Amino acid sequence: MSSTRHHPVIAAATQQLAQALGHENVRTDPQSLHAASFDNTRIPFPPHAVVHPRTEADIATTLQLANTHHVPVTIRGAGSGCAGAAAPIHGGWVLSLAHWTRIAVDATASLAHVQPGAITADIDAAAAAHGLFYPPDPSSVKYCTIGGNIATNAGGLRAAKYGVCRDYIYALEGFLPTGRFVRWGGPLRKYASGYNMKDLWIGSEGTLGVITHATLKLIPRPQARHTFLLAFPTDEHALEAAVTLLAQHRTPSVLEFLDTQTVACAQHRANAPVFPEAGASAPPAILLVEIDGAPGALSDDIAHLRAWARRHTPAWRETADPAEAETLWNTRRTCSQAMYQLGNAKLNEDIVVPLHAYIPLIQHTREIHARTHLPTPTFGHAADGNFHIHIMYDRNDSVQRLRAQEGIRLMMEKVVALGGAITGEHGIGIAKSPFLRLQHTTAEIDAMLAIKHALDPNHILAPGQIFDITNVWDHTPVTTPLPWDKH
Amino acid sequence: MSSTRHHPVIAAATQQLAQALGHENVRTDPQSLHAASFDNTRIPFPPHAVVHPRTEADIATTLQLANTHHVPVTIRGAGSGCAGAAAPIHGGWVLSLAHWTRIAVDATASLAHVQPGAITADIDAAAAAHGLFYPPDPSSVKYCTIGGNIATNAGGLRAAKYGVCRDYIYALEGFLPTGRFVRWGGPLRKYASGYNMKDLWIGSEGTLGVITHATLKLIPRPQARHTFLLAFPTDEHALEAAVTLLAQHRTPSVLEFLDTQTVACAQHRANAPVFPEAGASAPPAILLVEIDGAPGALSDDIAHLRAWARRHTPAWRETADPAEAETLWNTRRTCSQAMYQLGNAKLNEDIVVPLHAYIPLIQHTREIHARTHLPTPTFGHAADGNFHIHIMYDRNDSVQRLRAQEGIRLMMEKVVALGGAITGEHGIGIAKSPFLRLQHTTAEIDAMLAIKHALDPNHILAPGQIFDITNVWDHTPVTTPLPWDKH
Repeated sequence: MSSTRHHPVIAAATQQLAQALGHENVRTDPQSLHAASFDNTRIPFPPHAVVHPRTEADIATTLQLANTHHVPVTIRGAGSGCAGAAAPIHGGWVLSLAHWTRIAVDATASLAHVQPGAITADIDAAAAAHGLFYPPDPSSVKYCTIGGNIATNAGGLRAAKYGVCRDYIYALEGFLPTGRFVRWGGPLRKYASGYNMKDLWIGSEGTLGVITHATLKLIPRPQARHTFLLAFPTDEHALEAAVTLLAQHRTPSVLEFLDTQTVACAQHRANAPVFPEAGASAPPAILLVEIDGAPGALSDDIAHLRAWARRHTPAWRETADPAEAETLWNTRRTCSQAMYQLGNAKLNEDIVVPLHAYIPLIQHTREIHARTHLPTPTFGHAADGNFHIHIMYDRNDSVQRLRAQEGIRLMMEKVVALGGAITGEHGIGIAKSPFLRLQHTTAEIDAMLAIKHALDPNHILAPGQIFDITNVWDHTPVTTPLPWDKH
Repeated sequence: MSSTRHHPVIAAATQQLAQALGHENVRTDPQSLHAASFDNTRIPFPPHAVVHPRTEADIATTLQLANTHHVPVTIRGAGSGCAGAAAPIHGGWVLSLAHWTRIAVDATASLAHVQPGAITADIDAAAAAHGLFYPPDPSSVKYCTIGGNIATNAGGLRAAKYGVCRDYIYALEGFLPTGRFVRWGGPLRKYASGYNMKDLWIGSEGTLGVITHATLKLIPRPQARHTFLLAFPTDEHALEAAVTLLAQHRTPSVLEFLDTQTVACAQHRANAPVFPEAGASAPPAILLVEIDGAPGALSDDIAHLRAWARRHTPAWRETADPAEAETLWNTRRTCSQAMYQLGNAKLNEDIVVPLHAYIPLIQHTREIHARTHLPTPTFGHAADGNFHIHIMYDRNDSVQRLRAQEGIRLMMEKVVALGGAITGEHGIGIAKSPFLRLQHTTAEIDAMLAIKHALDPNHILAPGQIFDITNVWDHTPVTTPLPWDKH
C-alpha cells in the first residue's frame, strides 16, 4: 500500500479544490480527517481532505480535479459499512454525501426519489405515511444511508420474501469516475434500452461511480403480521424444521435462526432462559418466524404455520400483538451484543449457503469451534441462507488472533465448497478482499478489472478496494465510539 | 456495413471449426443459412455457418477460433426476438443453442436449473408441477427461449405485480466473448461478492457473453384469480381509471389497456361488439384486469375492485371461472392480428412511460394518426406503463412507408420527452438502433461501449448490434412463415 501522506501533488490539488468549492467545504482539520478515516470495521486510513459538495457541479469539479492530479476519491455516507469500503485506504479525498438527504414520495406511482445520504429507515417512514413500504432492512436501518445500501446491495431480515436493495431500484443518476454525468434507467417498471449499467453500479462499493439520486420502488405495506418463537433441542433440529417450512412454499417474511451457542449468550446476559417452561435444560436453538400480508390471507397461513410448529417442537409461543411480538424478538435483538461475554473481539462474516447446505454449515462452525478452541456463535436469515457466523476471541491474545484468522479462512473455504457466497450483504471492501479469489476465478476477476479500468481509466475512485488484498489483521482498530454503538 | 460474403479468412476458419466440432455440427447448406438469417423482424442477414455446439467445450472452441480469425458470432435461440438481435448482420457464425433445452426444478429450494434453449412456457409448466411459478410471460412465451428472454430482459403482462426476467435470475454461467468460462452468482438469494456481472449480461442482447446455464427463482403459484373486463367511452376515461386503481396500491396481476382503435379492429374481426348491451355505439376503450393470490385474500380485493369498477363505468363483466375468463381475454388475444385489416404492415414499438404520462402518450398517438393519416392502434400493460404503439401502413406504398417511419420517430421523441423508455422488453437490437441516442447521452453510450470493448476486445460477439445505426427500412423482409405465425 502506498503512503500518500504529505503528498505535494495532492496538497496542491486540495488547495485548488478548496478554492473552487469554498474552504469550508473541503475540510482538512484533524477531527474531520479522523472521523472520515474508517467505517464500522474501525480500521483507520486517514484521507487528505473531506469534501462536502453542495451541488452536482461540485462533484463534477472534484472528480475532474482528481483525474487531472490522480487523487484517490472515496465516497462516504454514514460510514456504517461492515467491509471497509468507505475507508480511504490510499488517502486522497473523501467525498461525503451524508448531508444529501432529500426524500420525496410519489404515492400515486408508488415510488420514491431520494438522495444518497437519506437514512434507510427515514425512507421507509416516508413511504409508510402513504401506506407504502420500502422493505430492505439491514440491521443498521436506523442509521445507514441508501447510498451505502446501493453500494453494497444491502439485504436484511426480510429478503427471502421481499428481496434486497437491488430489487427496489428503478433508476440511478450521478457521475462516472471521469466526472461525466449519467442517468441509468428511469421512474419505470420496465426498461430494456442499452446495457444495464444501473445494476452494475449497484453493489460496486463506490468503485464505478458517484450516485447522486436514486428512484426507488415502493410496494403496498403489509397490513398484518403474526410472530412465532420456537425452541429446538439442537441446531440440526431447528435447521431441519426451517428447511421443511421453506419446502412448503409459504414464504415467511422473517425466519431467523439462532444456534445454541448464541442462545446461551443471550440467556446468560438476560439471566433467564428463553423458554422457562423447559426448566434447567441445555440452551435450545431457536427459530423466530414472522408472516405478514393481508389479514384475510394471514389466517390460513397462521393455521398452516401452527401445524408445522406442532410437528417439529413442543416448545413455541406465538402472537399477533405487536407489543408481545417485541418480547419474542428480544433474544434476536440482543444476541449480537451478548456474544461479547465470549471474547472482547468478534469476527462477523455474512456468508450465504444454498438450502441443502444449512446443516453442513452449522456442523462446520462447530468443527471450527473444536479446532480453534474459540466460540463460533452463529445466527442468521434462514429463509435466504444468509448466516452471520462469528468467531469470538481476545484481541490482546496474539495466539487467539491467529487462531481466529485461521478459523475464518477455513470457514470461507467451506462456504465456497458448499456452493455458497463469501458475502451476502456486506460486500468485499477491504475486509473480505483476502477471500475474493476463493469465490471467483481469474477469468471472472479479470473481467471485473477490465470493467473497472474501462470506466475509471485513472483509477481514482476507491482504488485498491475489492480487488487488492488488504489484510485488516495488520491494522489496529480505533476505539472511537460510533453513533450506532448504542443500538 | 461491411460485406463478408465469400470472405476467404472466414471460409478457412469455418473449415477449421467443422474439423474440430464435426461437419454435421457446422452447417453451411442454404436452408440452414436462410433459417438462421433473421428473427421475428424478418430482415435477413445470411451467416457463413450455423454452429450447433454439443458441449461447452464446443462453445469455447468456437469463440477461440472466432477471436483468432475475427469471425463475427451471433447467438441464436428460437429466433423469436422482435428487435433483430439474433440477426447476424455482419455474417460470420450463428451459434445456435435452441437444442440446449434441459430443465431441472429443485422444488425444496424453489429454483430451476435451465439451459438457454429451454422454452419459457416449458419452464413454467415444470414449476407448476411442484406448485411453483415462473411469472415472466412475454406474449411469445410458448415458443421463445429463456436464453433470449435473459438476453433482452423480457417482460410480459404480469410484470407490474411479478417483475420481469431479471427479477428471476439467481445465477448465470457461460463464456466471455474471449472464450473464457465464468459463473456469475449462485443458487442463492443473496450475493454481494465482486461486480454484478450477472445483471450486466441480462439485457445485453448477446453482445457480452454466451449463456450456457441459468439458475432461476421460482415463487409460490397463486391459487386463485378473478378477471374483470371493463368498457369506457374514451381512451382517456380508461387510462384515468387505470391510474386511479394503481394509486390505491392493490397491484393487479394484469391490467391491459386497449384503445378505441384497437377495439374497433377486434370488433370488426369478430363481427360483434365486445359489449353488445351498449348497442351500436362507438367502439369503447377497454381495460382487462386480473387479480390473483391466496383465495382468502382475494375476496377482499374483489370487493375493492368491484367498487372501483362501479365508480368508473357502468359497463363491466367479471368472473372467477377460468373458462369464462378466457372469453373475457378474447379481445386482448386477437387484437394484434386484427390490426392487419388497417394495413398489410405494422410498426410495433414497446415503449414505456411513467404513470403521469399515460394520457399525454395516448393523445400523442392520435396526433400521429392525424398527422400521418395512418392508424395508430395502441394497447399495452397499463400497470407498468409498457404500451405497444403501432402504426399500420401499406408496405407497397412508398409514401405510406415514409410517413410511418416519420411517425415512429415522432413517437420515440415524445416518449423520451415524457421521461419514458424507447423499449421496455424487446431490446434495441438493430430495429431500435436509430433511436438509441434519443434515450442515452454520449457519456452514457461511451460508458457502454467501453464495457463492450473491455469484455470483447476483438468485437466478435454480435458486432454492430445495439450501437451501430441500422436502418431496417432499407431492407426487404422475408415472407417465410415462422413457427409462431399460427399463434
